[in-house]
Amino acid sequence: MERLKIDDRIDLYGRMLIALETLESCPEFTGLIPEVRSNMVFAAKDAKGIDDVLAIDGRITVVEGKPRAAGRPRFGASSHMARLLLEVRKKDPAVRAGIDFANTPQLTAWLEDYCQKQGWIFAKIDRSHEPEEVRQTEGASMPWKVAEAIRAAEGRVPKILYENGAVGKEPVSVILGEEPMSIARELCVIAREYKGPVR
Amino acid sequence: MERLKIDDRIDLYGRMLIALETLESCPEFTGLIPEVRSNMVFAAKDAKGIDDVLAIDGRITVVEGKPRAAGRPRFGASSHMARLLLEVRKKDPAVRAGIDFANTPQLTAWLEDYCQKQGWIFAKIDRSHEPEEVRQTEGASMPWKVAEAIRAAEGRVPKILYENGAVGKEPVSVILGEEPMSIARELCVIAREYKGPVR
Amino acid sequence: MERLKIDDRIDLYGRMLIALETLESCPEFTGLIPEVRSNMVFAAKDAKGIDDVLAIDGRITVVEGKPRAAGRPRFGASSHMARLLLEVRKKDPAVRAGIDFANTPQLTAWLEDYCQKQGWIFAKIDRSHEPEEVRQTEGASMPWKVAEAIRAAEGRVPKILYENGAVGKEPVSVILGEEPMSIARELCVIAREYKGPVR
Amino acid sequence: MERLKIDDRIDLYGRMLIALETLESCPEFTGLIPEVRSNMVFAAKDAKGIDDVLAIDGRITVVEGKPRAAGRPRFGASSHMARLLLEVRKKDPAVRAGIDFANTPQLTAWLEDYCQKQGWIFAKIDRSHEPEEVRQTEGASMPWKVAEAIRAAEGRVPKILYENGAVGKEPVSVILGEEPMSIARELCVIAREYKGPVR
Repeated sequence: MERLKIDDRIDLYGRMLIALETLESCPEFTGLIPEVRSNMVFAAKDAKGIDDVLAIDGRITVVEGKPRAAGRPRFGASSHMARLLLEVRKKDPAVRAGIDFANTPQLTAWLEDYCQKQGWIFAKIDRSHEPEEVRQTEGASMPWKVAEAIRAAEGRVPKILYENGAVGKEPVSVILGEEPMSIARELCVIAREYKGPVR
Repeated sequence: MERLKIDDRIDLYGRMLIALETLESCPEFTGLIPEVRSNMVFAAKDAKGIDDVLAIDGRITVVEGKPRAAGRPRFGASSHMARLLLEVRKKDPAVRAGIDFANTPQLTAWLEDYCQKQGWIFAKIDRSHEPEEVRQTEGASMPWKVAEAIRAAEGRVPKILYENGAVGKEPVSVILGEEPMSIARELCVIAREYKGPVR
Repeated sequence: MERLKIDDRIDLYGRMLIALETLESCPEFTGLIPEVRSNMVFAAKDAKGIDDVLAIDGRITVVEGKPRAAGRPRFGASSHMARLLLEVRKKDPAVRAGIDFANTPQLTAWLEDYCQKQGWIFAKIDRSHEPEEVRQTEGASMPWKVAEAIRAAEGRVPKILYENGAVGKEPVSVILGEEPMSIARELCVIAREYKGPVR
Repeated sequence: MERLKIDDRIDLYGRMLIALETLESCPEFTGLIPEVRSNMVFAAKDAKGIDDVLAIDGRITVVEGKPRAAGRPRFGASSHMARLLLEVRKKDPAVRAGIDFANTPQLTAWLEDYCQKQGWIFAKIDRSHEPEEVRQTEGASMPWKVAEAIRAAEGRVPKILYENGAVGKEPVSVILGEEPMSIARELCVIAREYKGPVR
């Protein structure tokens, strides 16, 4: 990432570390960490590929009952979440950060209501609508999923999107925003306010 | 675990730590770690519940491109794998250890062949056979799955079992044995010999 | 350490990990961790050199206000404490474990009294007595120090020994025993009972 | 640290994390880590006390032969180095960062020469000059030491300062600068260029 300006690198690492502290010091967030763990991604302003997206190496898992980053923030440490973010940014480059979290029928129903109160756009990706040719083509699912979420949100990038599960794929939700500190705080508020079952 | 005899506790912790070192010092094992991460479980001789099963707190994940335990071995740190092991032990109490790992069509095909060469029993759990009433009953899936694996293995406990995926569930494979040091070594041999794609 | 019998390796790792859990779950022990950190060492029965002595890689330090091992138990991970232990074992091979901890005038005075009550031998090494030729000879200080402690203890291996500081050397205390689980427990009792200032 | 402006917090955490990566990815730096470990400190612009100074929780130690931070950057995580920095800043508030490292006669002789080539001020604190009343007064040593270093540097703040050891105190060197990224790079250059013995 030598091509990034030093001020941008400082801003990326600084916001990421502060956001990570927010998540790690929120015990309620453990309830929202899915089996596949959570990751947090933060794209450089002019990110071209996943190597321009900062992520938590080893993701965020639960140790001793608390959220804990397995490793350090590192460029290129995420594939799945980084590709989702890059795809979203084709529609709205102001969106630079995302965190994935658990997804259950109860949480999703609660979140839909919560988003409405917040004035946030909430969009569902129904993977049963995924065309067979998309499913079969390597790398085609993510563009389809993001396009589907934006279509469901009537052309806008949603604040929270989720997909229902597919065979062999744990369903997750994703919260999006301009930078990670604010979405980490927003997600911790969700974790504290949601009282229903998660797993 | 105060009720465990001190010699048993030493044996449990000692074998677990040596097995963990085997996995962590095998870079090829990273290729076999699923999205939901791997766990390794080791049951006390007279284990009654998950609190009598030692597991890796936070499971084993990939950090800086290498396998790394997120936390320490701790009794009760696993739910899913511990329940699988306890269920298997109803059939064969000599089986005290297990590790879950990735499962893809290519790896599964290769493993089936590999098990035959080793003289190991390999059993598939087809979750599409899971009856609706089992699916709907809290806690009923695991006994059904283990019974199904033993049925597929003609009444014996398999060395390696795997399930095909269900909606929202990443499919995993499980290697079983009497104690963790030997299955960790066996799994590292598999990781080094298998050359095909994993993800 | 391939030359060690497998049962011995299991016993070494198992006792070490249980002892480490004892120390890490004792918040009062943070007060006894010196600037140079604490290490815990455990020698194989027939240990010939430091590669036969298990120690905590990176020692035990204070993170988030609690004792935490920096790395894993590893053979050869200690030099100083391992050499002290090997030297002590020339006198009494039953002594296989040791932990170093803080040393201040107040703690030392309290420990002297505490040892008397316990019937433990407590020995001081006065480094101002160290002959100049010992000081100048690479590797000569440790044999001299241990000999001095045994001389001070009238020919016996002490339970706790300490040295007063030398120029450039933080003074530490050392507790010795046959295996690490018991000395970890003994040291935690000391940490809880001692109420005076440590630093 | 809620009183800090958000932009300052981002800058502090970002630079600290990038500096830490520089140190951790420099294997030669292990040779410069003293027994008491290294810490890196970074003061907020208007730092009033140690709670306004960011430091590495648990310091930087050696694990698996490489430098590794024991914990996260945290305000207030250092006492000794933070107080040294705050004292230096009374003379020159532009100095906001410091790292302590090993100090041996050979390294010190080499460093004196190296500093001269770089045009850096190098200052020695001779603790044998410390007055008895300073030694006896709680909290008086640090102001005296910093005043002594500035006096030795003819009224200027040195780039590198070191103290010779006192009884019970491991001698360390300290590199100072305006922010941590540059001094971490400078220290890694020193670690790579210095070829002599460290311990």
